[in-house]
Amino acid sequence: MKYGEKNISRAKLQRWANPTPDRDYTIEISFPEFTCLCPRSGYPDFATIKINYIPDKYIVELKSLKLYLNNFRDQHISHESVTNCVFDDLKKFLKPRSLEVIGDFNPRGNVKTVIRVST
Amino acid sequence: MKYGEKNISRAKLQRWANPTPDRDYTIEISFPEFTCLCPRSGYPDFATIKINYIPDKYIVELKSLKLYLNNFRDQHISHESVTNCVFDDLKKFLKPRSLEVIGDFNPRGNVKTVIRVST
Amino acid sequence: MKYGEKNISRAKLQRWANPTPDRDYTIEISFPEFTCLCPRSGYPDFATIKINYIPDKYIVELKSLKLYLNNFRDQHISHESVTNCVFDDLKKFLKPRSLEVIGDFNPRGNVKTVIRVST
Amino acid sequence: MKYGEKNISRAKLQRWANPTPDRDYTIEISFPEFTCLCPRSGYPDFATIKINYIPDKYIVELKSLKLYLNNFRDQHISHESVTNCVFDDLKKFLKPRSLEVIGDFNPRGNVKTVIRVST
Amino acid sequence: MKYGEKNISRAKLQRWANPTPDRDYTIEISFPEFTCLCPRSGYPDFATIKINYIPDKYIVELKSLKLYLNNFRDQHISHESVTNCVFDDLKKFLKPRSLEVIGDFNPRGNVKTVIRVST
Amino acid sequence: MKYGEKNISRAKLQRWANPTPDRDYTIEISFPEFTCLCPRSGYPDFATIKINYIPDKYIVELKSLKLYLNNFRDQHISHESVTNCVFDDLKKFLKPRSLEVIGDFNPRGNVKTVIRVST
Amino acid sequence: MKYGEKNISRAKLQRWANPTPDRDYTIEISFPEFTCLCPRSGYPDFATIKINYIPDKYIVELKSLKLYLNNFRDQHISHESVTNCVFDDLKKFLKPRSLEVIGDFNPRGNVKTVIRVST
Amino acid sequence: MKYGEKNISRAKLQRWANPTPDRDYTIEISFPEFTCLCPRSGYPDFATIKINYIPDKYIVELKSLKLYLNNFRDQHISHESVTNCVFDDLKKFLKPRSLEVIGDFNPRGNVKTVIRVST
Amino acid sequence: MKYGEKNISRAKLQRWANPTPDRDYTIEISFPEFTCLCPRSGYPDFATIKINYIPDKYIVELKSLKLYLNNFRDQHISHESVTNCVFDDLKKFLKPRSLEVIGDFNPRGNVKTVIRVST
Amino acid sequence: MKYGEKNISRAKLQRWANPTPDRDYTIEISFPEFTCLCPRSGYPDFATIKINYIPDKYIVELKSLKLYLNNFRDQHISHESVTNCVFDDLKKFLKPRSLEVIGDFNPRGNVKTVIRVST
Repeated sequence: MKYGEKNISRAKLQRWANPTPDRDYTIEISFPEFTCLCPRSGYPDFATIKINYIPDKYIVELKSLKLYLNNFRDQHISHESVTNCVFDDLKKFLKPRSLEVIGDFNPRGNVKTVIRVST
Repeated sequence: MKYGEKNISRAKLQRWANPTPDRDYTIEISFPEFTCLCPRSGYPDFATIKINYIPDKYIVELKSLKLYLNNFRDQHISHESVTNCVFDDLKKFLKPRSLEVIGDFNPRGNVKTVIRVST
Repeated sequence: MKYGEKNISRAKLQRWANPTPDRDYTIEISFPEFTCLCPRSGYPDFATIKINYIPDKYIVELKSLKLYLNNFRDQHISHESVTNCVFDDLKKFLKPRSLEVIGDFNPRGNVKTVIRVST
Repeated sequence: MKYGEKNISRAKLQRWANPTPDRDYTIEISFPEFTCLCPRSGYPDFATIKINYIPDKYIVELKSLKLYLNNFRDQHISHESVTNCVFDDLKKFLKPRSLEVIGDFNPRGNVKTVIRVST
Repeated sequence: MKYGEKNISRAKLQRWANPTPDRDYTIEISFPEFTCLCPRSGYPDFATIKINYIPDKYIVELKSLKLYLNNFRDQHISHESVTNCVFDDLKKFLKPRSLEVIGDFNPRGNVKTVIRVST
Repeated sequence: MKYGEKNISRAKLQRWANPTPDRDYTIEISFPEFTCLCPRSGYPDFATIKINYIPDKYIVELKSLKLYLNNFRDQHISHESVTNCVFDDLKKFLKPRSLEVIGDFNPRGNVKTVIRVST
Repeated sequence: MKYGEKNISRAKLQRWANPTPDRDYTIEISFPEFTCLCPRSGYPDFATIKINYIPDKYIVELKSLKLYLNNFRDQHISHESVTNCVFDDLKKFLKPRSLEVIGDFNPRGNVKTVIRVST
Repeated sequence: MKYGEKNISRAKLQRWANPTPDRDYTIEISFPEFTCLCPRSGYPDFATIKINYIPDKYIVELKSLKLYLNNFRDQHISHESVTNCVFDDLKKFLKPRSLEVIGDFNPRGNVKTVIRVST
Repeated sequence: MKYGEKNISRAKLQRWANPTPDRDYTIEISFPEFTCLCPRSGYPDFATIKINYIPDKYIVELKSLKLYLNNFRDQHISHESVTNCVFDDLKKFLKPRSLEVIGDFNPRGNVKTVIRVST
Repeated sequence: MKYGEKNISRAKLQRWANPTPDRDYTIEISFPEFTCLCPRSGYPDFATIKINYIPDKYIVELKSLKLYLNNFRDQHISHESVTNCVFDDLKKFLKPRSLEVIGDFNPRGNVKTVIRVST
């Protein structure tokens, strides 16, 4: 329970074979409709989640990624934890050559926060 | 059939002599009206294709490039494959000193994806 | 009285344990509603305060940060001093691996000023 | 006839003494109303020409530069050639410490092209 | 009379002690309402003057800077000269650890010019 | 069950006395973080809800409005129904002199929809 | 064959009951990924189709609308005809209280065209 | 104590003679740095105050207007009350031919509010 | 020689049958690459020409319109005259139900001009 | 001395014959580089002056208009007076069918002002 969350069954990410594993190239994904719940106030938080990676053997299947991210909708989790959690899950699942995950959150109490995690 | 597509007769790219082959300079091309078909859903995908290169002996003729890109209109091909495919075709045909191809796709299922391939 | 201010009791900053101290990642905070008073004219000054840091053991609690910044509302303090003061307070309190504080002030007398302090 | 053009009498560029030749500094010029004729179709082409340089002994006189660029109005010349041509003329005439010329052309057939030439 | 101007009594710049001379930090100033007169045509020129520096012992007092810049209103001086002149005056007066002055001028005869001088 | 929803206990809206009921004036409210669930696909929908009204005896208390709107987070309800539902609830509760409710929804399947209901 | 097209089987539009037929309100739909073929050159055309209406008994089902619009992908049809055709089809199918259809086409040959049809 | 405030001595507005009282013309004023205190939470509120009027005998002196608006900095007053209060004060003091006052407040709790009062 | 020009053979406009003459609808055309010559200075002028009309029996063929507008490239004609001239030619040729022609010219001598002619 | 100014010899406006006096059409002029002096502080003021009119017998010659507006550079005159003064001068000189003059001034003391005068 590293991220302070009770154990949840997350939507299963799916992966495909990288069509050109012999070449380094980058895939940049942006998901502007991320929402979860603040672990203190219980109010909704909103963010854009950005994922940039150089694939090795696998590329992530986009619909499963969307469902995986939608699954945080009812979780109480902090800005820092959710960004690190997505990073950990993708790193373990895709084993990419490089990976960056950015959580770009809407302001709360007039304070805007962006979290960046990268290899 | 490297990119999972059946063999298709693509519009022929054409090339011209580089007017100043003795000098390194860059040519940046942007084509905002690219469309192909999603290999899973069959629905149309839309993208801007960007091509940046330093020519060696040849420069690409722009009208033939447009027709070449229009030719993907009826192909079922993934974001990753089409970007790598354009990269391969241009690299083989122009033998440029450097080359970058970017597929900047419109969101699908609220997920936006950008693919970058470069030498 | 380093910043030319009389001793004031500032709202107490609060800190939390960093959930992933084993990894370098950045936290970017932006607070667009900062106001203090010009030490010469006495007129209000307005700024966006931006704070970017790589946490070590601690992360700042956002509501306490907001109250800390609101506390400058009635202080007479220059652009340069307030930016350096926030930098000093956060550096001492969070002991982050790196820290940048930016004071992006609204124009005064048609002159716009931005102050950047970083480790 | 390096750029595939018949010999033309171009408006004479003029130059001034650099007021501070003892110091490296950059001059960035942008001319958004460049037009010439396409060597294939004969149709007008439009571009913004950008010139960035570090002067040595001379700086270009701006009105003569404008007249020099206006002089391409009736010439049939390709995107690549005209950008390289302006680069060659300015390099020979100003002998600058560094020089970059950019031809940022309006789309033709939905394809946008930017040519960058630099020392 | 280095900048081709007759000797003028310029508004006196004023300086203050740097509140944190033990630390490198940057001050970025932007003044969008600069105007002087073209030395050829006599017509008004307009520019934004940007000043970025790392202070050493002194910081510039902003109102005196504004009055200093307003003082060019009636001077006939070229784009290149005025930018170098402001650079020289500030360098001599503030002895900063680094300094950059940018003159970003409005178009004249459809030609836009930006002058950048830095240490 | 007019809007095809099972009966739900909605967060209670609260109202205050209008401080100037003798004068017609407008209050425009915008809430950019509305989310509910699509009644067909079950996927999340996102919208900005805008409320413009001329108050009579009451003005809506903003925090209770936010909680009321947050309460749709787990409801399956169409674009058209939710906009009409908010309109009905506010009309009954505030009895305003005029009222407009706009549901400005994010694209779904590349189709963007805006619903406008007014007296 | 009013619009100069051979008879085609179009994707079937679907409609739902309007949840509040007792009230006039507007539905504004925007579809930025429309493409068809130019009847003269055979080259692809691209447009954003906008549909604004006040429903009577029916509202259009959005997924069927998207499939209906996607169906023009392989048709040769002019800007003017396609906009009027969508207007006719929606008017007949929805019998709305009012209807406006706008075809906002990307430039062709540097000429941009917008067609507006309304009741 | 119409607006629920204890009696305060406001900075004195000043007025000048209208230079062309024989003609209807409009004066539009925008003050983007308004701040007061929320009567419930005590936290700062921020707004842009806009004033549009057709003068009769008087025009408002701008510096006195700025000081008058700065005077709300320490008052606890609601969005609705402060906008109506500025309207009342200006109407009584300037007796303009027409008057509109807009309070365009920054979001609070993710809810943005704009208040418009006009004759 | 109404517009002060010597008689010139203009590219021939072409027209097509309006596909829905039974209905009023508008066609809005924008051509951002218009250029002609200033009748005083002889220097090039640049403009966007906008044409909005309700067709009666005819719609203008777009390529012929482009060639017609390109034909002004070598004519010396004022802002006011060229806008009225295009209006006259289109009115006579298309006999539209309504017509508006706008000449939106780039600044000359820092003065920007827009000419609007309509029925 | 209606506008509180000492008598000054203004640059002479010039006018031309309207090429199409038989038709109502509008001419919109925008001059973004207006500057004069504040009658109280003596500091420079900056504005964009916009002039919209329907000509009768005359149209204003643009270079003379620019010189006329440049002539305010050394005058001490208020926002309200200068806008009304330009209106009066143009109305008397051009006798247009309608006229609007807008003085859109840069902020002073954080207060932005726009003056609109029209027939």
